[in-house]
Amino acid sequence: MNSDADRHVQVIGIGAGDPAWLTLEAVRALEALDVAFVFQKGADDELAAARRALLPEGVREVVIEDPPRGRGAEAVAVWRAERVRLVREAVAASDGNAGFLAWGDPTLYDGLIGVLREAGFGVGVVPGISAVSALAARFGVALNRVAGAVLITTGRRLEAGWPSDADDVVVMLDAGLAFRAYPDAEIFWGAYLGTPDEMLLSGVVAEVGAEIERVRGAARLRKGWMFDTYLLRRASSA
Amino acid sequence: MNSDADRHVQVIGIGAGDPAWLTLEAVRALEALDVAFVFQKGADDELAAARRALLPEGVREVVIEDPPRGRGAEAVAVWRAERVRLVREAVAASDGNAGFLAWGDPTLYDGLIGVLREAGFGVGVVPGISAVSALAARFGVALNRVAGAVLITTGRRLEAGWPSDADDVVVMLDAGLAFRAYPDAEIFWGAYLGTPDEMLLSGVVAEVGAEIERVRGAARLRKGWMFDTYLLRRASSA
Repeated sequence: MNSDADRHVQVIGIGAGDPAWLTLEAVRALEALDVAFVFQKGADDELAAARRALLPEGVREVVIEDPPRGRGAEAVAVWRAERVRLVREAVAASDGNAGFLAWGDPTLYDGLIGVLREAGFGVGVVPGISAVSALAARFGVALNRVAGAVLITTGRRLEAGWPSDADDVVVMLDAGLAFRAYPDAEIFWGAYLGTPDEMLLSGVVAEVGAEIERVRGAARLRKGWMFDTYLLRRASSA
Repeated sequence: MNSDADRHVQVIGIGAGDPAWLTLEAVRALEALDVAFVFQKGADDELAAARRALLPEGVREVVIEDPPRGRGAEAVAVWRAERVRLVREAVAASDGNAGFLAWGDPTLYDGLIGVLREAGFGVGVVPGISAVSALAARFGVALNRVAGAVLITTGRRLEAGWPSDADDVVVMLDAGLAFRAYPDAEIFWGAYLGTPDEMLLSGVVAEVGAEIERVRGAARLRKGWMFDTYLLRRASSA
C-alpha cells in the first residue's frame, strides 16, 4: 500500500449516456485499472449500474455509498466533507492503479476532481463527452452563434434574470424549470441523454414549455430520478 | 445521385487533437462513410492532414480548399457564403454516405453545422471532445466551481470587460491576448492540445502572462499557425 502523497488517481470521463461515447483513451484507461470506484446512491442507482457495466473484466469494483445530502450551503459542505473522507479511506485501502468513473465529462459539473484533490491525491483526468455536447449533437445544433458566447449555468442562476453576457445559455441542475420565465426563448431540452429512455423536446418556450414540464414530471415519477439539461436561446442581441 | 433535399450529411467530431480522443461512435461513423470531406487551408494545413490521417481505408476523400477570409463582418459573410456554395457543390457531386470531419466538438465554435444547414442538407452530428474539455483535463481542473457558471467566449468579447455572469471564463479564438487585462486572474493556457506540439502553461496572469505571450509568439512563427485556448479564473464573487 502506498502513502497518500504517492497516490495518483484517475478520473475517467465515460460520456453522457451512450457507451459509444466512450473515447479510445477512456477504453484504454478502464482496461489499465486495477480498481474502480463508483459512487452509488442506493441499491437501485441506474447511473451507477451503467458505469459499472462499462468496467472490463478483472477490474476490481469498489462501490462507495454516496452520503445523504441535505439542502442549503451548510448541508452541502457537510456532504462534501463526508465524500472526501470516504474517498480518502477507500483509496487508501486499495492497491494498484485506481480510478473513478465519471458520468459525462469530469471537468463540467462533476465534483470528483475537487473531492480527490481535497483528499490529498494527485489527479489525472480523461475527458468525456459532456451532457452539453450530447444535447447539442442530438439536436444537430451548435451551442454558439457566430462570434457569440455560451454560458453554462444553473437553474438557480437563471432564475435571477437572463445573463447579460450570452444569448445562448445551457442550464444544468434545474429542478425549478427556470426556462418558464422566458416564453419567447427557444429551448432544446433533453433528458436521460444517450440512454434508452432519452427524451428530446424543442421549440419556443411558450409553445413547448408546458409539454416539457408534463413529460419531465411524469418521467421523474416513473423512474424516481431525472437527469436533464437544456439549451435556451434568445434572439441575438448582437 | 440524390437530390439535395434527400441528402443527410454527417458532421463527425474527431476530438481536439489526440486520435485517442475519438469516441467509439466516431470510429464507427468514419468506417461507415463512403466519402469524407475535409476543409483545407493551403497544402501544408496540418490540422487537415491530421483529420485525413484518421480516415479508414476505402473512404473516398474530398478536399475542399477553404476560401480566403478577409477581416470584418462583411468579409466573413462573403467567406461564409462561398463555403456554403463549395459545400453544396461538393456534396451534390458525391454519392453515398457523406460526412465532414470536424476538429474538436462540432457543436462548439465550429461553423460546419450552420454551413451544411444553409446549403440545404439534413445534418447528423457525432459529438467530440472539445478543446475546452481537453484543456481542463490536461490541467486536471474542473471548468466550473461549486454552483458556479462558466462562460465560453471570444477574445474580442473579453476585451470589453470581465463578464458579469461568471468567474470562470473559457476563451476561444483570441489573437489579441485579452487575458493581459486581468493580472490577478489565474490562467490555464494550452496550445496544440493533444498533439506532439502541445504546450501548457498556468499561473497568475501577472506572473505567467509574459511567458505565454513569448512562447505563443515563437510557436506561431515556427509553425505558421496557432490554435490555443485558455481558462481564466478570478476569485469567486459568490
